[in-house]
Amino acid sequence: MTRLQRHCGTTGWTSMSIPDLTHDAFLGGRLKLWQPKQGYRAGVDPVLLAASIAAKAGESVLDLGCGAGAAALCLGRRVEGLELHGLELQPFYAELAEKNAAENEIPFTVHQGDVADMPAALKERRFHHVLTNPPYFDRETGSKAPDTLRETAMGGASLPLWLEAAARRLLPKGYLTLICRAERVPELLAGLPDYLGSCELWPILPRAGQPSQLVLLRARHSGRAAFRLHAGLLMHKGVAHTADAESYTDEIAEVLRNAVSLPFPKK
Amino acid sequence: MTRLQRHCGTTGWTSMSIPDLTHDAFLGGRLKLWQPKQGYRAGVDPVLLAASIAAKAGESVLDLGCGAGAAALCLGRRVEGLELHGLELQPFYAELAEKNAAENEIPFTVHQGDVADMPAALKERRFHHVLTNPPYFDRETGSKAPDTLRETAMGGASLPLWLEAAARRLLPKGYLTLICRAERVPELLAGLPDYLGSCELWPILPRAGQPSQLVLLRARHSGRAAFRLHAGLLMHKGVAHTADAESYTDEIAEVLRNAVSLPFPKK
Repeated sequence: MTRLQRHCGTTGWTSMSIPDLTHDAFLGGRLKLWQPKQGYRAGVDPVLLAASIAAKAGESVLDLGCGAGAAALCLGRRVEGLELHGLELQPFYAELAEKNAAENEIPFTVHQGDVADMPAALKERRFHHVLTNPPYFDRETGSKAPDTLRETAMGGASLPLWLEAAARRLLPKGYLTLICRAERVPELLAGLPDYLGSCELWPILPRAGQPSQLVLLRARHSGRAAFRLHAGLLMHKGVAHTADAESYTDEIAEVLRNAVSLPFPKK
Repeated sequence: MTRLQRHCGTTGWTSMSIPDLTHDAFLGGRLKLWQPKQGYRAGVDPVLLAASIAAKAGESVLDLGCGAGAAALCLGRRVEGLELHGLELQPFYAELAEKNAAENEIPFTVHQGDVADMPAALKERRFHHVLTNPPYFDRETGSKAPDTLRETAMGGASLPLWLEAAARRLLPKGYLTLICRAERVPELLAGLPDYLGSCELWPILPRAGQPSQLVLLRARHSGRAAFRLHAGLLMHKGVAHTADAESYTDEIAEVLRNAVSLPFPKK
């Protein structure tokens, strides 16, 4: 047991009362994931993140802060033959990710440990792709999350540290891809290590004309292209939410329901 | 004569052969500007920048690197009763800006000097609005500009220094607004001093679905709101350039032809 496992032992699967779980369908039912009823629950973010990864069979992938495995397993469902690894701080989520991988029959090696002090098995490796949905919660300015599982999931290492740890696990020419709240873009761009380049920011807009709430960002180890700011990706049709009907744009509906890829724009 | 005037004396109006000028209509002919035929020439950038400034009569405005005065004079044409100041490094452009202001009968005080070492008359002042179209040219990575006027216009102080100098001239709650190439967004966001907040990035898209080439950025002295990434502003209709017809979107055509304002999105 590592120092961090001991430190976080109180949130472990085996040492606390097991939280209520839900069994949720992703990718039109192609993937089913156990998630805690309370605490961090995967929404569309990890599905979009996974869909944006241009990984090919035989390549290696690391999901930093993999939670219950939504992003990695969405990717594994879409692309066969990947070597998938995940790192998760909280033993409860790490065990859930293993259970989800096994039940969905997707090979996925889950490591339990801290991004700031990775297990040796990860430290000695580099990957073709590192993906992450980094913690949102900002201890300095955010309000306290209402439960410990959620707080730890959203409050861990600082964003710059998270980005640096992610970048260090990249093979030369490997891609770091992340999804993040738009309000964190300045912190994100400032925190990318200098040896990453060819950075692309892809704003996700809830609807036409509305400001971005989420962004996808991709950068490449040793990339040399100038920064690119892509046109916004529309999530919903129309200008207002209509509760009765699904309003996803066709492109997004294909990603969420049919496990279609969502490649970064070519230019 | 300041140190910098001496340094740049060879590009001065009086000490070199006077370059060929053109007399160009802006804002549907509401403004006419003399510009050198060669060298830095104002395009749509300063017009969009000026249109985005929410300045009111009685407020003070500083245009850093005002060139021949396009941005400041577009603003002065749209909003009466402003106290307009400009700072320009090159005596040739500074004199041209004064001439343009006089011929268009817009009160505009032009200071000749360096952003990195401002004239005392500016150093002791603060403004409600600072606007700037900072130099594009990057000496480290860019190709050499083909003539001295243009090179100096595009190659002066570094962007972080430029941003810091601009921010220092703001009154509390004053706005810094700039237009810049999209590829410089990371440098831009990293270079904004911490005491600016409520930063808003507004991508300008050539056409629907195309990546941003230009961005408008606004930040507020002592602002406390989170960073916002607005939906893209479309320049042109359609998906491809048709050389025969003007293809500006109605919103942009109104700005360029009818001197209509282009306020930052409210949310």
